[in-house]
Amino acid sequence: MDLNITGEKAKAAARIAATLTTGKKNELLNAMAEALKAERDKILAANVIDVEKAVKAGTKASLVDRLSLNKDRIDAMAEGLLQIAKLPDPIGEVINMNTLPNGLIVGEKRVPMGVVAIIYEARPNVTADAFGLCLKSGNAVILKGGSDAINSNIAIVGTFKKAVAEAGVNPDIVQLIEDTSRETAAALMKLNKYIDVLIPRGGAGLIQSVVQNSTVPVIETGVGNCHVYIDDSADIQMGIDIIINAKTQRPGVCNAAETLLVSEKAAKSFLPAAVKALREKNVEIRGCEKTAEICPDMGIIPASEDDYYTEFLDYILAVKVVGGVDEAIEHIARYSTGHSEAIVTESYTNAMKFLNEVDSAAVYVNASTRFTDGNEFGFGAEIGISTQKLHARGPMGLKALTTTKFIIYGNGQIRG
Amino acid sequence: MDLNITGEKAKAAARIAATLTTGKKNELLNAMAEALKAERDKILAANVIDVEKAVKAGTKASLVDRLSLNKDRIDAMAEGLLQIAKLPDPIGEVINMNTLPNGLIVGEKRVPMGVVAIIYEARPNVTADAFGLCLKSGNAVILKGGSDAINSNIAIVGTFKKAVAEAGVNPDIVQLIEDTSRETAAALMKLNKYIDVLIPRGGAGLIQSVVQNSTVPVIETGVGNCHVYIDDSADIQMGIDIIINAKTQRPGVCNAAETLLVSEKAAKSFLPAAVKALREKNVEIRGCEKTAEICPDMGIIPASEDDYYTEFLDYILAVKVVGGVDEAIEHIARYSTGHSEAIVTESYTNAMKFLNEVDSAAVYVNASTRFTDGNEFGFGAEIGISTQKLHARGPMGLKALTTTKFIIYGNGQIRG
Repeated sequence: MDLNITGEKAKAAARIAATLTTGKKNELLNAMAEALKAERDKILAANVIDVEKAVKAGTKASLVDRLSLNKDRIDAMAEGLLQIAKLPDPIGEVINMNTLPNGLIVGEKRVPMGVVAIIYEARPNVTADAFGLCLKSGNAVILKGGSDAINSNIAIVGTFKKAVAEAGVNPDIVQLIEDTSRETAAALMKLNKYIDVLIPRGGAGLIQSVVQNSTVPVIETGVGNCHVYIDDSADIQMGIDIIINAKTQRPGVCNAAETLLVSEKAAKSFLPAAVKALREKNVEIRGCEKTAEICPDMGIIPASEDDYYTEFLDYILAVKVVGGVDEAIEHIARYSTGHSEAIVTESYTNAMKFLNEVDSAAVYVNASTRFTDGNEFGFGAEIGISTQKLHARGPMGLKALTTTKFIIYGNGQIRG
Repeated sequence: MDLNITGEKAKAAARIAATLTTGKKNELLNAMAEALKAERDKILAANVIDVEKAVKAGTKASLVDRLSLNKDRIDAMAEGLLQIAKLPDPIGEVINMNTLPNGLIVGEKRVPMGVVAIIYEARPNVTADAFGLCLKSGNAVILKGGSDAINSNIAIVGTFKKAVAEAGVNPDIVQLIEDTSRETAAALMKLNKYIDVLIPRGGAGLIQSVVQNSTVPVIETGVGNCHVYIDDSADIQMGIDIIINAKTQRPGVCNAAETLLVSEKAAKSFLPAAVKALREKNVEIRGCEKTAEICPDMGIIPASEDDYYTEFLDYILAVKVVGGVDEAIEHIARYSTGHSEAIVTESYTNAMKFLNEVDSAAVYVNASTRFTDGNEFGFGAEIGISTQKLHARGPMGLKALTTTKFIIYGNGQIRG
């Protein structure tokens, strides 16, 4: 497969996507939602092939579940597109427009990125979601899903292309790379001539592979080794509620907590009750020596250095007793992936210190890390959660898929 | 040299730099400016070694000039630092702070990037400029200058470190990599664990090497294949003034024009006068066949396909007659590096079309491309001109060296 042809088509289509009016983009999104429902049986039939293949290959149940579509899930994909249609269009806003002393009028106009590429894993709903967000932000998109979902993705993208073409727009605004080989993924990561940004969505392995190998600018997403720190003066029940929520409400996602830090002043009153509550939720506790001392006979497993670096994504929690807020901040600076961290405290000074000094995408006082999410933050939709500092940080809405250009109105100015 | 030690020190120093008040940062900038003047003789003595080495090696005169310092140039570096002290501090601003339905108060706070690395070539003034901008924006910086300027850079950074330490701040906020080998540069580009962003400043070769080899997020800067397009209805004299300015006012910089496009309707009235004026400024013209036909006996050299891709940075201009504004936009989409482009026109419709459809960092109507510059745009200082779309585009001021983090004030919220 010649990726240069894909790239060339995407670049040409991006110029069309960039000039679509908000009305036309919303018309397309609505048509795509309709098409998903109209072609539901065809998509489900394709999905059955993927699911049967996965089951035969002995894929674990949670992955098969991610891969599986049904009527409700297709309806949810369609509903997602209708929601994107309702979001405000980020394109066209002009900010900081000023007249310079020489009479030049200079402003910054929000424009699409151009060509966005997305490499993702098993979930076929990402296909609809990613194209919907790229379209609303005026971009052409190149999608590369996983081999597990290839038949589902071909059916979904085919449905969209037909709907787009019927609405009189170049269907190259969405292209699926059907060759799911690693070589093609590697080539995609070097396609600087055509791709403006590459966003990986998936596990840590996929993301690191993209970060290490891509020469195209990347937005690193989603790896979260998140911390909850219980300060000296924490409200004990609030602390328990927050760590139970952050660890167990949905352990497999990036904003779930992986390490609990407890100030030594709070440890004796907090830890036995917290560990009891966590154990009741079947959470395995990997604790430091002090944790084990304070909670004898509660099944504490000794924590290794590696445990503090690990995103368990499971019912496992590392626990460490620290000297206080400064040591908690030090620990987070060393071990965190910079996603989400929370302090539970009644101390104004320590709350402000934690907010100021912790260098992560989302820093909380007295709330669960589970809120780091585009929908929770009111963005209406989310293309991913950036854990890098360049361009976008934290949950990314439509604006993260845009850039700006300077527009300058003159009347003959030349530089002296 | 162990870059991990450099990285570790920078990361620790970044946490200090991030919490410096605006007052303290300005105190440091003023102290650094004083120190440059106080240590002027020492810096000049170090510079003489670099310059003599360059002359012996047969380095061309323009490069030796870039490398050379004198009293005025050191004073200009000091003045630059005083100017940076006067700029508003971008750090700490909180935007979009809102209360969610569940009572969480969420805002985006502007914070430093952390550790900025800058790889640059011969000019030692970049050393002062880059550190000054990184300090004002609360970052630690790792500098890697070229081997040509190593003695000058060691003297300048040594002066700064002393001034910073005397003011009671960790001097690791600025570190110079004294080993100028390619291997060390390559290792720096892979130091993701410690570096948040890498900015190359220099020629196209350096920039491409960084883009191709860096796994650290990069801001691509400064390559400019800029176009001036003379539309059907252009004011002829304005067109001549603008192309003369854009090509010849300073041909060696990235915002100088490299290609002149002329609508065929304007060609006969515009080209002979424009080519005459350009030839009088000793500009070599590489024209298409139509250009040669319209301007016989004026020394037009036939343009090759490559000429339209080339950033000459010299008294050379590619010229092409095009069918009109659409063909001009097509040409720019194909050949431009996305830096700066200008249309000269009296047509409102064509002006708006050009502004909307040309996808470059700066798009001008009736003005010279030479204005794409942080100082000209009123930013007060510039770390470079981004030609990528991610994070920053066009002239980058202090804000380009910052990121944001979400800060969230709760009172016990957990996710349902």
